[in-house]
Amino acid sequence: MSLLVTGSIGIDTVETPFGKRENVIGGSAIYFSYAASFFTPVRLVGAVGEDAPGEIFKVFGDQDVDTTGLEVRKGSKTFRWHGSYVKDLNEAVSVQTDLNILAEAAPKIPEKFLDSKYIFLANTHPVLQQQMAASLKKPKLIVADTMNLWINTARPELLKTLKMIDGLVLNDGEARLLTEKKNLIEAAREVLKMGPKFVVIKKGEHGCLMCSGDHIFALPAYPADTVIDPTGAGDSFAGGMMGYLSTQGNVSMATLKRALAFGTVVASYTIADFSLGGLKATDREKIDHRWTQFKQIVDF
Amino acid sequence: MSLLVTGSIGIDTVETPFGKRENVIGGSAIYFSYAASFFTPVRLVGAVGEDAPGEIFKVFGDQDVDTTGLEVRKGSKTFRWHGSYVKDLNEAVSVQTDLNILAEAAPKIPEKFLDSKYIFLANTHPVLQQQMAASLKKPKLIVADTMNLWINTARPELLKTLKMIDGLVLNDGEARLLTEKKNLIEAAREVLKMGPKFVVIKKGEHGCLMCSGDHIFALPAYPADTVIDPTGAGDSFAGGMMGYLSTQGNVSMATLKRALAFGTVVASYTIADFSLGGLKATDREKIDHRWTQFKQIVDF
Repeated sequence: MSLLVTGSIGIDTVETPFGKRENVIGGSAIYFSYAASFFTPVRLVGAVGEDAPGEIFKVFGDQDVDTTGLEVRKGSKTFRWHGSYVKDLNEAVSVQTDLNILAEAAPKIPEKFLDSKYIFLANTHPVLQQQMAASLKKPKLIVADTMNLWINTARPELLKTLKMIDGLVLNDGEARLLTEKKNLIEAAREVLKMGPKFVVIKKGEHGCLMCSGDHIFALPAYPADTVIDPTGAGDSFAGGMMGYLSTQGNVSMATLKRALAFGTVVASYTIADFSLGGLKATDREKIDHRWTQFKQIVDF
Repeated sequence: MSLLVTGSIGIDTVETPFGKRENVIGGSAIYFSYAASFFTPVRLVGAVGEDAPGEIFKVFGDQDVDTTGLEVRKGSKTFRWHGSYVKDLNEAVSVQTDLNILAEAAPKIPEKFLDSKYIFLANTHPVLQQQMAASLKKPKLIVADTMNLWINTARPELLKTLKMIDGLVLNDGEARLLTEKKNLIEAAREVLKMGPKFVVIKKGEHGCLMCSGDHIFALPAYPADTVIDPTGAGDSFAGGMMGYLSTQGNVSMATLKRALAFGTVVASYTIADFSLGGLKATDREKIDHRWTQFKQIVDF
């Protein structure tokens, strides 16, 4: 079924122990869309400034991503991020962040996208997330991401967003900050009390954890021996997860588990190269093969 | 089949955010023996000083641990460790370590234990590990642990030990130090080149990783909402793993995987209380039940 994502589109400069890439296309909506498009057509909503390179419309190649909702805004500048993983491949240090267009009005969801059933609201101001959630006609599943900035500066608004969504995806540090619980199981249970039916806590190289009702699901990361650039891993994880979910027609615990494993596998491709290089080098067949391999790796 | 463990026996003082316990019985061989005894009779070899409390012989209660090899050495003092997890439940800060008897001659393996088939050489000087390994008549499986101290100060001896054993169990920091590889998959492969047929890398709250030949196995930790005192978790993990292995008659990849899951489950009891409290509160039935639950938690 139709999958809509709205999130950031950025121009990244990334340094890792394996090199540096300047002014490459990035952002949560880009990674998410590419990752999800291995499973289903994707509707992308996001905004860039006049400075965005023309190639931004070609970044998905033959992947089925509808960029009708990609707005090039006159007089605005594209979001830019300069991050470094040189000290620690598992934690980005932000050298510079220029919010630019992300600090302006949200992009408009095109009329023809308003019937979307599966929605991913990538990390942005919770009020914008609420507006977008409210504008959809009959969504089946709304999942959102968030970040420290909003937990710290827009907590009441974020709590309101949490009551409008079905699932929340966030990383371990954010879960602890949001709930003030150090233990992640306790943190996950606290998040469930705030509204969502399920919560996925991403732990980077240490895998992920999901709680829904009384159910707990835990996965290690895919044991990757090649980690070149972790940028976009979390968004690719969410993309793989939502991409698979949107093809299943139900959100049972069993389906969610398989979806998280697909997210894990897709993210393992993202980190194997800079920018979108890892995703560009894979396809659905390779993903399915690695998914089966991953199932064997964790099976006992 | 017969399982022998040799390792430290200590008197611990432990502080965690949940309280402090002074002069409680601890040490790698104690935790290992208790954990393994849920699966099989255990033969314990270790030494304490004259200062050891008499209760040390009663610490295992009704568990089947043969303490014939527990030497009370005249004129010596028991190993003592004072650790704190107050700042971070996942990393012990050693407030004080008095090696005492651990810096003296190794305990002697009783004649009647020399036919043991399954051997766990808990962390001690690699030369002592070699001596003990060499003294055994016909061991079927020798697994060892090690630590930073020996990697840094007795590397050539440790490399010799690695050629005498079948399996190595160590934590992520130790694996990186030993192999100078930051990526844990690469580190595991390097360890295999040093001799062992399999290597288990413990990652604390993040689970474990095993490599053997071209096979990889990864597990998250049991998602525990109660963590009171992590002391002994790694030794309990090894005890559960070796205890189960020694009952199976083979060391296939499938058996090893199940053994690691049992180790994970037994460790989840250890961390739920101070000292041996968590292990004393469980039994084989509860362990089996949680193992089945754990299988569901990671299954997709």
